Amino acid sequence: MSSGKSKMEDEAVLDRGASFVKHVCDEEEVEGHHTVYIGVQMPKSYRRRRRHHRRGGHKDRKDRLMENISDKSDTENNDEASNSILKPLISPAGERIRIMLGEDDDGPSPPQLFTELDELLSVDGQEMEWKETARWIKFEEKVEKGGERWSKPHVATLSLHSLMELRACIEKGTIMLELEASTLPQVVDLITESQIGNGLLKAELKDKVTYTLLRKHRHQTKKSNLRSLADIGRTVSSASCSSFIGSPDTTQRNLSSCSMNDISDKPEKDQLKNKFMKKLPRDAEASNVLVGEVDFLDSPFVAFVRLQQAVMLGALTEVPVPTRFLFILLGPKGKGKSYHEIGRAIATLMSDEVFHDIAYKAKDREDLLAGIDEFLDEVIVLPPGEWDPAIRIEPPKSVPSADKRKNMYSGADSGQMNGNMPHEGGGGGGGHAVGDELKKTGRFCGGLLLDIKRKAPFFASDFYDAFHIQALSAILFIYLGTVTNAITFGGLLGDATDNMQGVLESFLGTAVSGGIFCLLSGQPLTILSSTGPVLVFERLLFNFSKENDFDYLEFRLWIGLWSAFYCLLLVATDASYLVQYFTRFTEEGFSCLISFIFIYDAFKKMLKLADYYPINSDYHIDYVTQYDCMCMAPTILGMTYLHYTPKGNPLNATWSSLSKKECLKYGGELVGKACQYVPDITLISFILFLGTYTTSMMLKKFKTSPFFPTWVRKLISDFAIILAIMIFCGVDILVGVDTPKLMVPTEFKVQISLLVPLKEHMLKKGAGYHLDLFWVAILMIVCSFMGLPWYVAATVISIAHIDSLKMETETSAPGEMPKFLGVREQRVTGVCVFILTGLSVFMSPILKFIPMPVLYGVFLYMGVASLNGVQFMDRLQLLLMPAKHQPDLVYLRHVPLRKVHLFTFIQILCLALLWVLKSTVAAIIFPVMILALVAVRKTMDYMFSQHELSFLDDVIPEKDKKKKEDAKKNSKCGSIDRGSIHLDTDFTFSYIHFILHCSMMV
Amino acid sequence: MSSGKSKMEDEAVLDRGASFVKHVCDEEEVEGHHTVYIGVQMPKSYRRRRRHHRRGGHKDRKDRLMENISDKSDTENNDEASNSILKPLISPAGERIRIMLGEDDDGPSPPQLFTELDELLSVDGQEMEWKETARWIKFEEKVEKGGERWSKPHVATLSLHSLMELRACIEKGTIMLELEASTLPQVVDLITESQIGNGLLKAELKDKVTYTLLRKHRHQTKKSNLRSLADIGRTVSSASCSSFIGSPDTTQRNLSSCSMNDISDKPEKDQLKNKFMKKLPRDAEASNVLVGEVDFLDSPFVAFVRLQQAVMLGALTEVPVPTRFLFILLGPKGKGKSYHEIGRAIATLMSDEVFHDIAYKAKDREDLLAGIDEFLDEVIVLPPGEWDPAIRIEPPKSVPSADKRKNMYSGADSGQMNGNMPHEGGGGGGGHAVGDELKKTGRFCGGLLLDIKRKAPFFASDFYDAFHIQALSAILFIYLGTVTNAITFGGLLGDATDNMQGVLESFLGTAVSGGIFCLLSGQPLTILSSTGPVLVFERLLFNFSKENDFDYLEFRLWIGLWSAFYCLLLVATDASYLVQYFTRFTEEGFSCLISFIFIYDAFKKMLKLADYYPINSDYHIDYVTQYDCMCMAPTILGMTYLHYTPKGNPLNATWSSLSKKECLKYGGELVGKACQYVPDITLISFILFLGTYTTSMMLKKFKTSPFFPTWVRKLISDFAIILAIMIFCGVDILVGVDTPKLMVPTEFKVQISLLVPLKEHMLKKGAGYHLDLFWVAILMIVCSFMGLPWYVAATVISIAHIDSLKMETETSAPGEMPKFLGVREQRVTGVCVFILTGLSVFMSPILKFIPMPVLYGVFLYMGVASLNGVQFMDRLQLLLMPAKHQPDLVYLRHVPLRKVHLFTFIQILCLALLWVLKSTVAAIIFPVMILALVAVRKTMDYMFSQHELSFLDDVIPEKDKKKKEDAKKNSKCGSIDRGSIHLDTDFTFSYIHFILHCSMMV
Repeated sequence: MSSGKSKMEDEAVLDRGASFVKHVCDEEEVEGHHTVYIGVQMPKSYRRRRRHHRRGGHKDRKDRLMENISDKSDTENNDEASNSILKPLISPAGERIRIMLGEDDDGPSPPQLFTELDELLSVDGQEMEWKETARWIKFEEKVEKGGERWSKPHVATLSLHSLMELRACIEKGTIMLELEASTLPQVVDLITESQIGNGLLKAELKDKVTYTLLRKHRHQTKKSNLRSLADIGRTVSSASCSSFIGSPDTTQRNLSSCSMNDISDKPEKDQLKNKFMKKLPRDAEASNVLVGEVDFLDSPFVAFVRLQQAVMLGALTEVPVPTRFLFILLGPKGKGKSYHEIGRAIATLMSDEVFHDIAYKAKDREDLLAGIDEFLDEVIVLPPGEWDPAIRIEPPKSVPSADKRKNMYSGADSGQMNGNMPHEGGGGGGGHAVGDELKKTGRFCGGLLLDIKRKAPFFASDFYDAFHIQALSAILFIYLGTVTNAITFGGLLGDATDNMQGVLESFLGTAVSGGIFCLLSGQPLTILSSTGPVLVFERLLFNFSKENDFDYLEFRLWIGLWSAFYCLLLVATDASYLVQYFTRFTEEGFSCLISFIFIYDAFKKMLKLADYYPINSDYHIDYVTQYDCMCMAPTILGMTYLHYTPKGNPLNATWSSLSKKECLKYGGELVGKACQYVPDITLISFILFLGTYTTSMMLKKFKTSPFFPTWVRKLISDFAIILAIMIFCGVDILVGVDTPKLMVPTEFKVQISLLVPLKEHMLKKGAGYHLDLFWVAILMIVCSFMGLPWYVAATVISIAHIDSLKMETETSAPGEMPKFLGVREQRVTGVCVFILTGLSVFMSPILKFIPMPVLYGVFLYMGVASLNGVQFMDRLQLLLMPAKHQPDLVYLRHVPLRKVHLFTFIQILCLALLWVLKSTVAAIIFPVMILALVAVRKTMDYMFSQHELSFLDDVIPEKDKKKKEDAKKNSKCGSIDRGSIHLDTDFTFSYIHFILHCSMMV
Repeated sequence: MSSGKSKMEDEAVLDRGASFVKHVCDEEEVEGHHTVYIGVQMPKSYRRRRRHHRRGGHKDRKDRLMENISDKSDTENNDEASNSILKPLISPAGERIRIMLGEDDDGPSPPQLFTELDELLSVDGQEMEWKETARWIKFEEKVEKGGERWSKPHVATLSLHSLMELRACIEKGTIMLELEASTLPQVVDLITESQIGNGLLKAELKDKVTYTLLRKHRHQTKKSNLRSLADIGRTVSSASCSSFIGSPDTTQRNLSSCSMNDISDKPEKDQLKNKFMKKLPRDAEASNVLVGEVDFLDSPFVAFVRLQQAVMLGALTEVPVPTRFLFILLGPKGKGKSYHEIGRAIATLMSDEVFHDIAYKAKDREDLLAGIDEFLDEVIVLPPGEWDPAIRIEPPKSVPSADKRKNMYSGADSGQMNGNMPHEGGGGGGGHAVGDELKKTGRFCGGLLLDIKRKAPFFASDFYDAFHIQALSAILFIYLGTVTNAITFGGLLGDATDNMQGVLESFLGTAVSGGIFCLLSGQPLTILSSTGPVLVFERLLFNFSKENDFDYLEFRLWIGLWSAFYCLLLVATDASYLVQYFTRFTEEGFSCLISFIFIYDAFKKMLKLADYYPINSDYHIDYVTQYDCMCMAPTILGMTYLHYTPKGNPLNATWSSLSKKECLKYGGELVGKACQYVPDITLISFILFLGTYTTSMMLKKFKTSPFFPTWVRKLISDFAIILAIMIFCGVDILVGVDTPKLMVPTEFKVQISLLVPLKEHMLKKGAGYHLDLFWVAILMIVCSFMGLPWYVAATVISIAHIDSLKMETETSAPGEMPKFLGVREQRVTGVCVFILTGLSVFMSPILKFIPMPVLYGVFLYMGVASLNGVQFMDRLQLLLMPAKHQPDLVYLRHVPLRKVHLFTFIQILCLALLWVLKSTVAAIIFPVMILALVAVRKTMDYMFSQHELSFLDDVIPEKDKKKKEDAKKNSKCGSIDRGSIHLDTDFTFSYIHFILHCSMMV
């Protein structure tokens, strides 16, 4: 901040400085501390005329300096101001703050403050005591007197009135900024002595004031829900300190702790037990605000004290943190509300980041006043007719950083009210951030070598960074996701390939591919998995080889080898840099297409199943005797050989005793109304299918419900799919109908022998797109040889993996959102997940209980869930919404609605075309169409402005962007960029893999 | 307000008056208008010293008076202030406002204002023009420049800075308060002349200023979503006024209207077409705020003009309303943002109710300044560190009435910030409001006669009040509800009484009872219907008469007659006054019990159905040949008579050709694995059951989704149950399984002969509980004679009826909630509904397509839906919520959590007891238990304080109460009380009926 000093004369600063402050604290400073002013509501200018009245007081060098500065600047500005209402003035408050905050900038920043407001209250007309009524770390929490609980944290809404009264208090009261004291009685003694010395307090009142200030303190302690449940029925119980406070209100006492001995400087048991300490960093200090009305005073007794050393003042504070600041306001009876509001005002100021710094650094009264003025200049004003002050405002998601305000004194620019932020052209979020990773080197394997060079130094830390409990939970969660995926896709793969490949292959393939990839790739947080397009491709391949009488696994091996060769070629020529041409338009197109395929396939499967198990809609209970299906001897030339026994039947059984299969095998005929129908199976399948889907959805959403503690909710939500599968396997078993189950082959069709080439690559480590692609190619070769499915990056699971490894600040003030610190990047979680997946092959005895419709339900869920948060889907919804109901999305603020709709229509058209292509013979040119999409996107440059495209076609997810715009200056989060690059990487990564897979078809 | 004058000296006023204002506008007034101040940011006190510098200016009598007042009060207060920071001062601003608002209090209140902010902008470097950038009626709506749309209405967040700059503008600029002018050029001419005369503007700049102020105005016009859809693809199109503005930005022009001729005083086509006019009352006036930066000025050009007569100034305003106020701020380049913020500040002030009045009544500059000071004193301040000014705050549900602020000058008291409202003991909402209707008269039939006397005068208006389109929609909606109910209950009644009573009886009974009741009762908005308890009772009755071989219908007649006799006895003795002893505790207990019975019965029915149609869980497709069910000849003494033909079989058929029923009838035996199973029916039934339930729920919630226009959503939501029934009847037909259907008897079992007694009561009209009860008794007799079901008030449908007849203000400012005016009380809707219901008996051919499981689904839905909004259910949920996630409910603010839980536990216990009673033989003493509940409630007085009970046991629904607390002063809504009394009436009404019905069982 001191570096900004030179910019002080900058007009922008002057303009945005504290010119309001000019209204309040006029062009001159008052030098002394002890001047008696006639009216405290008078601004300083008024006082100036009476400067000669002041008695006592001292004037140090700095004060003189300050006065010179301000006098000079005022003179200058008065000349200018004479011809403009808007010309800025250098405000003395701004100048003071600049000097204050600029000083010792290198020192440690002041510790965090816990502020507690205690009010003097009498309990049932008994003796007065100090009762905690509110507290602040960042936001206000108020004691609900009747409810005996803490309110939710909320934004402290103040009145200008109370702030002005507070200003008057600071102006007139006793200010002691480096008080040396270690106990409360000592502090009180020093204050009262000072006030008596200055004639502010009559000497005979000292004892009464001291007595009042040393009354007991009663804090609102938080109790767990369980404990308060246990309290039910215990309406009358003994209170531990009733004998001390002598009050009959025993109910109240149950929930409050009261301190009997304020003089002790050791923390009390209640204080130490207080769980609220978790919210405070270790070096936190307290500021105590004590306000109250007493009957013996005629004029208010005001003191603001900063102790030289923060000390524990007994049970003064709710939590055992040492007190640094004390604000005391005792006044005559009848103004309790005003005192309360003044107390809230000073407490709010103390919890304000800028005033907090000023309070720590202030050298005199004027510094504090400048701090208040700076605060006033920055407050946000709500018109009285448009807002109800009784409404508690929930803390916002993010607040502008205080650095912005602090830096204001070194020439930065501030925004305007109500989201009027100017948009920084199209550069803000347009296009990808093309990092080093994607630059074309032009040398053979240049990108790959660079990747390795870049990543190698982190290889060791990729292991020891994982030592955290969070990694364990991430492993469990991602393992469940991976296994669910492996089961689902394995099941479907078996379905597609006549069980040439199935669940066991899927487990093994996932384990081998994923494990190696996580161990050695550039982006170890990526989870490899089978995805929809791979499944589609395998099915095509299988049918093709069956039709042409090829050996499926051998045919597949050659295709795999060629594909891998192409991939390696792309790696060698640094072709990965092409990724940057895939914008959100292309990415969303594909992610939606994949999701639609998922959803479509789930329903298609179910309809196929319904077709396979037809329902007898003519069935009537009364005619049960007419429905049967008998195996009859074959009819030859119109004659039925009733007594002709089935050929080759070892048991020499009659036709009618044969089962359906046997009957058909031996040439019998099935006759009867019941033959072509299968009861119950279709219907129970639909129940399982829809049940699994809705249950997964509901359990997943359970995280945001208000029930149960957070960890329980998180657990249920994380295990949502597994829980849903288990519930509906249970339903299936309960109903007992013979639904189609997951087929688990008992043997592997793996061709092991050829695992050697893997070895020679074991030592190559590194990072980036080239390295990732390289490993995908290698793994493709391995899987092809082993007859395992191919694997590509699974977007949904990879993002879940990254989410589960997010690091956030641990102590955050109540109401404040934890800050995102980054992602725990390491290789351990991924490797463990895949080892566990590999071990899951022994689960096959359990797997055969899973009905296929349940898996189809999971399939449907995955399709629908992956559409979540895709901007294209939001825009589709906009088509159905009247403009006034549309959400306040960033792009709607900046792009005309018809342009948004046009963009959506083009995307729909492209998707429809892709869908048609996929379903016809033209599927063979599918990958080419993906390149066509890029071309479509390129032509859109002529239909939309770059400004519009920067909002509509943008890889930063919508939510992040909005947050960015809403709190643009909150720029300290380099780690967020890192996270979003990861997301970005994964998105593009999965798509380039998909494209490569598709290109295999050519 | 003038009546409050005498209280002016009250200290409360002084305290809460505008003492902040003292800080800004100091103890003296500046007399002239044209004083040149050195720094506008200087408070007046500073100026005072320079008073002798002022040149020109005039001083009228009132100014002198004002100065005397303020001077005097200042002197007084300076003395007081010397010994207290908090002693209030009579602020001259407050005094001025009191005089201003107190004047001609009887005159019409000033018209509503539409405020428009136009800014001077150049389009693509072309000529400047005025562009509308924001507008206000109550809340701010901003033009999204990029999005070319209006933002959502939001609370205007201002900076103190801009308000202070605005104050300086008003202090220094030209103020013309009774300007006589009829065109904009005239106005501009007068302003510039005045400024030149005062030396504020150089004469040579007049032309430039005039030219600038008469530039074209471009307004943001709203387009419908459909029209903007049509715009898609039309990226380049011709604009109607491009030739005038000569700008190449054709895209922008499409959505803007521009005015070519500002001099015309006729409204333009675009103005007249503007749909926004709907939001404004007919006599609305406009205030135009024009701000902009120009290069030819060195100092700002500021003018605030109030025209003597509001006139249309051409296309100056977006909507064709005459302009009353003009605020003009032209300033030098480089301060555009400041000008914008000042423009927003004055526009926000103009939309503030109090300042709006002041602006209309102001006599001079000082009045306006006092208005600004009053506004400043009332603003709500958000600390800069806790809120982001870029967040647009949604308008609150309610704002404190401006009357509160206006009345402040006559001695009222104000609340505090953040919901600190003191609770007014237990009296606020505790207990029922016992009106005249429930007072015991002590005379025979006294209550009934009073009711009739009270209601008779309204009888005619009960018919002509119904002439409104709303009544038509209410009829349709309530008809559907009633018919659904009649079908559902008719179906279940048929089920319970072996079709002795069924859907047709249900239709007829509903029509007769409901129609007569609506025509003649005290509360014609109550809808009579069969409810769960009646059904339970009828079932008990039917079983009892069957077991004892009574004739059910005859037995029922006698019970009905006796019950009616008791009812009439209660009417004659005014026993209805007992209703007041039923508190929320009792009411919620019953409503929950009924809901639970609904839910329990729905599932029980389904399980019974599953039991009746068992699923064959051993079925295996391959063994289809083994599953059959054959009718065999009876086995006698171990011998099967294969060739013994069934006795009495007319067709002489073989045993195997017989149906199940025939087989059993003729003594045959059913042999085979398939005999005891029924395929598909159970499963499809569950699909229909759950499907109907979830679809009803989803469609009902559709009202709050953002899709489609409001009327479509409302329609879908209103028809939710009918739609769900239709959808699942469709599913049933599609699947074709023989599900159990609604049995519709083809003939009535009605014993008509005895309709005579009805006639003699036809002339008795009136109102109130006694009258209602009287009619219920009469109808009970009628129904008993006719063999129709009995009817009681249906809470859910009655409330829906009242909701659909709510009257609300029609023009409300964007973002403002429409105000509730009352309920359209009349008899027509009810009567029509029941006539339509009666005609529905001809629907029976359609009704037989409705599967029973669908009705059970509706049953479940009704049970769950009626639990909505019951405080007991909220409290049950609290048991599972950690304290910090609990919603901010009013009773949680005032009652300790353990007390809340204790109350809940007692209620659970009572309900559990009632449930057990209901299920056992003790059901006979059920009605007695209801009285026991009242006793339980009475003993709770010893466990809870009255304060706590006033929050927990309260008939005012929770939501209303919260609203009340949040905006307690918003007390002008006498009509809300009327509405809630209705609700209240219906609640208690339905319960007393229920109790009476139960008492029939004794």
